[in-house]
Amino acid sequence: MADEQIDAAELEELMRRGDVEQAALLLSELPSGSAAEVIAPLPAEACSELLRALPDDEAAHILEDLPQDVAAAAVAGMPPAEAAPRVEHMAADDAADLMQHLPADSAQAILDRAEPTAAARVSGLLAYPERSAGGLMQLELIAIPRGMTAAAVVDTLRAGAERYATYPASYLYVVDEEGRLDGVLSLRDLLLCRPDERVARIKITNVTTLNAGDSAEDVVRLFKRTHYLAVPVIDDGGVLLGVVTQEDAMRHAEEEAEEDLLRLTGIAGGDEFRAMPVLTRSRRRLSWLSLNVLLNVLAASVIALYQDTLQAAIALAVFLPIISDMSGCSGNQAVAVSIRELALDRVAPARVLWVVGKELSVGLINGLALGLLLGGVAWLWKGNPALGAIVGAALWVNTLVAVVVGGAVPLLLRRFGRDPAMAAGPILTTLTDVCGFFVVLALASHYIHLL
Amino acid sequence: MADEQIDAAELEELMRRGDVEQAALLLSELPSGSAAEVIAPLPAEACSELLRALPDDEAAHILEDLPQDVAAAAVAGMPPAEAAPRVEHMAADDAADLMQHLPADSAQAILDRAEPTAAARVSGLLAYPERSAGGLMQLELIAIPRGMTAAAVVDTLRAGAERYATYPASYLYVVDEEGRLDGVLSLRDLLLCRPDERVARIKITNVTTLNAGDSAEDVVRLFKRTHYLAVPVIDDGGVLLGVVTQEDAMRHAEEEAEEDLLRLTGIAGGDEFRAMPVLTRSRRRLSWLSLNVLLNVLAASVIALYQDTLQAAIALAVFLPIISDMSGCSGNQAVAVSIRELALDRVAPARVLWVVGKELSVGLINGLALGLLLGGVAWLWKGNPALGAIVGAALWVNTLVAVVVGGAVPLLLRRFGRDPAMAAGPILTTLTDVCGFFVVLALASHYIHLL
Repeated sequence: MADEQIDAAELEELMRRGDVEQAALLLSELPSGSAAEVIAPLPAEACSELLRALPDDEAAHILEDLPQDVAAAAVAGMPPAEAAPRVEHMAADDAADLMQHLPADSAQAILDRAEPTAAARVSGLLAYPERSAGGLMQLELIAIPRGMTAAAVVDTLRAGAERYATYPASYLYVVDEEGRLDGVLSLRDLLLCRPDERVARIKITNVTTLNAGDSAEDVVRLFKRTHYLAVPVIDDGGVLLGVVTQEDAMRHAEEEAEEDLLRLTGIAGGDEFRAMPVLTRSRRRLSWLSLNVLLNVLAASVIALYQDTLQAAIALAVFLPIISDMSGCSGNQAVAVSIRELALDRVAPARVLWVVGKELSVGLINGLALGLLLGGVAWLWKGNPALGAIVGAALWVNTLVAVVVGGAVPLLLRRFGRDPAMAAGPILTTLTDVCGFFVVLALASHYIHLL
Repeated sequence: MADEQIDAAELEELMRRGDVEQAALLLSELPSGSAAEVIAPLPAEACSELLRALPDDEAAHILEDLPQDVAAAAVAGMPPAEAAPRVEHMAADDAADLMQHLPADSAQAILDRAEPTAAARVSGLLAYPERSAGGLMQLELIAIPRGMTAAAVVDTLRAGAERYATYPASYLYVVDEEGRLDGVLSLRDLLLCRPDERVARIKITNVTTLNAGDSAEDVVRLFKRTHYLAVPVIDDGGVLLGVVTQEDAMRHAEEEAEEDLLRLTGIAGGDEFRAMPVLTRSRRRLSWLSLNVLLNVLAASVIALYQDTLQAAIALAVFLPIISDMSGCSGNQAVAVSIRELALDRVAPARVLWVVGKELSVGLINGLALGLLLGGVAWLWKGNPALGAIVGAALWVNTLVAVVVGGAVPLLLRRFGRDPAMAAGPILTTLTDVCGFFVVLALASHYIHLL
């Protein structure tokens, strides 16, 4: 594998010595993706300075390849008049994503100073919701009038070669006089046909299209189901607006999957990276934690109701946290399987009963196994079979409840248009805790003479 | 968006009436990706029957697009003599993936009956580790001798048009007499050059390549850093072996991210889908759960050590599960952020101290906030400020421990070559439980006169 040997430490050293020129020169020699990788870990001010020392178009390509939060921080550190020409050289969709990560007034200040045509393209894209085909599409595509011959198309390509070099084009798009999509032309067919052949005769007409309003989920599903490299986006009148590439769709899908992981552990209100300010990170974690602590108090108040029972059989206090924790674990496994099956389209949100049935069978087996294990430990420890029976039975029942609830809640959330990952955790934990504490202590208070 | 209106229910109905012919006919009309989507939810026997009723090449394309476990179940249900011609028509890399999901003897029986050249290609691919560039590459590529002219290349393409139609080719690969990679030729350059131009003059020579032994992680990293649609794979002698497409690399990355979610909740020993047999699902979940129950017993035995203290201040029993659960939650957030930063290359596994520092600051703030909240509840509930102080202080200390351990463990696991997602959960929970129980009960036993 080709390996670039300039690393962040070397750059940081140069920056610390104030040698921005030399650092920028080193950076210039890398492909933009590698340059982005090298400067991403630097402090935002250093990134800003480096990007200002590079030519506009080089800085633009690096900005396209930086993670959006890093790019936004770097651009926020430049005067708008210096940011504008760099943003203007970016692909319009990447520029629009970047604008969305800036405060509204800084974004406007930059667009006001940018070249009007480029700024209009970016503003146009900003009108589409971020998580829609319109929000994912790019504007860089080659549109061909349908009357042309193959030879004329080749001439067009040759004339625009420099401009088209960065276009993701294995396909050209054939449009009519009103800009409506009329067909797709593959480079391969163009290469193999006779020069005097009309575009209208070699174009592919049975074209899969996306509507600008289609959800990002539908876009990802389409690319997963097919092997298309790019799909054109049209408006309700059939006018060609842009193109979503497989790359953009798959990157979006991967980011979503990575975000599930954060949301599942209750990091709300946006991404967390450790390079962010501590108060932002703290706040994003804390909102969910403080809700959770209150739910926990609610659940634990069941224990307070049975305080006398607990005092009479204090050994139970050892097992309460175990039952609570184990049911949480079993339940989270069911949550994870549901989230994944939903993400991979392996289960429809309406099939709650099917999921409940599948979870019941696993819960019966696993609950029995875990109940026997924990009950056995309790019996051996205190030499009291009744203690073992109560603890074991409670864990069995609670495992059942946990997997059924854990399996079903993500589907229900999805059905009501919510994110399946977000609330499954706290709802689940509270429910299983209440249920677990109640079963142990109610059983114990009924059989208190045996303990 | 183009929408196909045949669904699984309709097919299932036809299958139930024994009308396999009609069902296969309906399926034939769909693109292979949609057909795969429609039949994936059917029982394995129905999938087998349908695929046997379709022509070999159509069945092969659907098999390529089915999830691997579903495809394997369908093929396992056919006699090897009927499976062989279908596998033989698959892309060699998809066929190899499929063979890896079959029992070794069934896979061998199928390959023995397949056409020898096709079987040899598949067997050749099976020699590479699944998670390597060799394991991810496909063999379908167009290699061009370097002496050719552009016009001769176009003739070659025209002659092989039918065979090349399914190749993911925006690029052709130029090789020397020994099959060593000499350069890459883009369709676009081929289209724009003069017909008598020599391939050697228009080829791209500064080509990024992968070595067959490169890890899947390196492959994914390369595609994330660049925008290449495909990267050639060579052996140590520079001989061209195959090509990894962006699509295959990104699919692999997405599967990995989805799998993290399962592994994080302790589903071990492979994927889980609810369509799998209940005992497999039960076993994959149970191995980790039973380990966890024993670790939980270990942690809770701290409570047993302080049984007298607890009996004297039974109100504490309400707060033990809360402190255990809340520290688990805080710790898991730190785990998720670390796993994500590792996956996105935002932190090097060696930067443990940096992570610890970042987590300490968040832990101090969040621990204080949560401690005040829970301590306040305890004080109000029992009217005892000492109880509030002990509970609050314990939660603070324990939150700190949890986020530091949770942030650091995934990095340490990665440094020692383990999967960061696998063990973070149980290690973390046990440690925080021991620590939390100990802090609460040790403080309480010291200040027992105040409670």
